[in-house]
Amino acid sequence: MIVTSQASAPNADAPQAAQDCILCETPGGEVLWAGELARVVLVDEAAYPGFTRVICQRHAKEMTDLSAPDRTELMNLVWLVESVQRAVLSPDKVNVAALGNMVPHLHWHVIPRWRDDACFPDAIWAPARRKDGVGEGAERAGTRLAAYVEALRTRLSQLA
Amino acid sequence: MIVTSQASAPNADAPQAAQDCILCETPGGEVLWAGELARVVLVDEAAYPGFTRVICQRHAKEMTDLSAPDRTELMNLVWLVESVQRAVLSPDKVNVAALGNMVPHLHWHVIPRWRDDACFPDAIWAPARRKDGVGEGAERAGTRLAAYVEALRTRLSQLA
Repeated sequence: MIVTSQASAPNADAPQAAQDCILCETPGGEVLWAGELARVVLVDEAAYPGFTRVICQRHAKEMTDLSAPDRTELMNLVWLVESVQRAVLSPDKVNVAALGNMVPHLHWHVIPRWRDDACFPDAIWAPARRKDGVGEGAERAGTRLAAYVEALRTRLSQLA
Repeated sequence: MIVTSQASAPNADAPQAAQDCILCETPGGEVLWAGELARVVLVDEAAYPGFTRVICQRHAKEMTDLSAPDRTELMNLVWLVESVQRAVLSPDKVNVAALGNMVPHLHWHVIPRWRDDACFPDAIWAPARRKDGVGEGAERAGTRLAAYVEALRTRLSQLA
């Protein structure tokens, strides 16, 4: 379920939704949780099991378009995702990024990385270094994906 | 000036410095400001004038290795950088990322982007789409670089 009505948001300078914005018009993945400010979405990407996005519910473009409390609240969701990834998936590294060049609607990529994954140590947006399967790290994490989703849903459901 | 001694940091679980870590051993760019938790460094990258990094002073690997107050303090520096980039350089987008696959010492890339820059709309880690100069957006921003640095230094110097 995605919350799209936030007329009472204290600093809703950004429009609630924009035409032709895929993240206003679609969930952008399997929604694991949705609050007033943001939703948490599982990305279907075999090379990076557990790849998760934290997507702003408003059509804001940059973090500095949000109020300071909203920035902190949004980032707390990112850190929650990162901590569950580390606890359940044991990645070698977590990559966190808000780019939005193609879709200028605020969304954070939280990406577990393994030393033998497709692009490591490059960013996932670089050309793949390995094209023969997903690597042992990601493969092992893939077997933990259901546990990750369950743990993440549980932690998110405990939010005030 | 880089502050390296933080023995009294309240939650210094991470080591203060690690051997063979380039961000423990070198500034990592032109240091514009340094506090106890982080330093702000200008990156010399002609394609992205104003590219700035916020680098943790401790050898922490992930954001969730920091305490919640330290996370907020570090991100507030990132947002300060982003806001000065927007005010002075007028980028079409700002990209914010903590990857650290090659150098697992917490550092944030804050990257102003222009529609005609080398890689837009891809991440800067993707192959360049344009190799003929830096584009008008970045070129215009290049002429504002000194003003950006001055504005950023001023804002940083006003921090408590």
